[in-house]
Amino acid sequence: MDFSIRAANVDDCKDVARMNMELAEYEKVTEQVTITQRDLEQDGFSKNPFFHCVIAEVPQQHKSKDGHTKIGFALYFYSYSAWRGRAIYMEDLYVMPEFRGKGVGKALMSKVAQLGLAAGCTQLNFTVLETNRSSVDFYLRRGCSDVTSEMGYHFMSCCGDAMRQLAQP
Amino acid sequence: MDFSIRAANVDDCKDVARMNMELAEYEKVTEQVTITQRDLEQDGFSKNPFFHCVIAEVPQQHKSKDGHTKIGFALYFYSYSAWRGRAIYMEDLYVMPEFRGKGVGKALMSKVAQLGLAAGCTQLNFTVLETNRSSVDFYLRRGCSDVTSEMGYHFMSCCGDAMRQLAQP
Repeated sequence: MDFSIRAANVDDCKDVARMNMELAEYEKVTEQVTITQRDLEQDGFSKNPFFHCVIAEVPQQHKSKDGHTKIGFALYFYSYSAWRGRAIYMEDLYVMPEFRGKGVGKALMSKVAQLGLAAGCTQLNFTVLETNRSSVDFYLRRGCSDVTSEMGYHFMSCCGDAMRQLAQP
Repeated sequence: MDFSIRAANVDDCKDVARMNMELAEYEKVTEQVTITQRDLEQDGFSKNPFFHCVIAEVPQQHKSKDGHTKIGFALYFYSYSAWRGRAIYMEDLYVMPEFRGKGVGKALMSKVAQLGLAAGCTQLNFTVLETNRSSVDFYLRRGCSDVTSEMGYHFMSCCGDAMRQLAQP
């Protein structure tokens, strides 16, 4: 299948917001999504952006049933390991169901790895739902390690009232 | 105990590198530490830094047995959730053993939460070794959730040859 991978620009936010919601529907957590197209535009495409994004696109003649040509994305940002230095974090990787199994996910992830290496990063990190076995297997086949299972690292989060409470001096 | 929390500057990198190594010794993983003082200077204090850092400092009269006045740090960076937007990630939190139990760790984490809220972040994320029960309990008491235990998110990493392999188009 003919597709291309390129850096996202502000005009892609509408499609990223749409695919973001498709992914949330797939994982049955739409009520957790508070991010809008406007947020993505502001947070990803102003000075000192909070994230970067790459887009997978097909030519018009291969558009989706609903008429979309932007059919996948990976959202990432640069991060850091106090022990191993520069790292890149892939926050999201999504390919529309009708375009899966054609190498699009691999190509998106490959691009993120390339960008990380070019920036001097020595690791690519991300989280995955353990119950999403096809994704876990996809990543393990590509040489990724499950740091939670192998070393016992747990991902923790503090939000909302708990975060405001924590911020009290 | 009298101590202050402030933003780190490039002159603090020597002490951050020292404490970084103390933490690695505590967790018995010194062989995994490849980061030097020079790396910290370059990665944290040039244009578009990969991380930010806050330092805990005591006055000269309360210096450590070895003569140190910089006695703790938290290393953090801004990150993003595709569903909930702006986030802050605390990569490391360390207080020298002889200064523990005096609120320094809480004050460092509190400062990171404050900086996150000021930047519009709605969550503070981090990882912790599950076997480090005193740390896990410290965080749970402060309202943090264990996303790995509660939702099944696993932290994955791809480094070295696997990352270079992944980057092959």
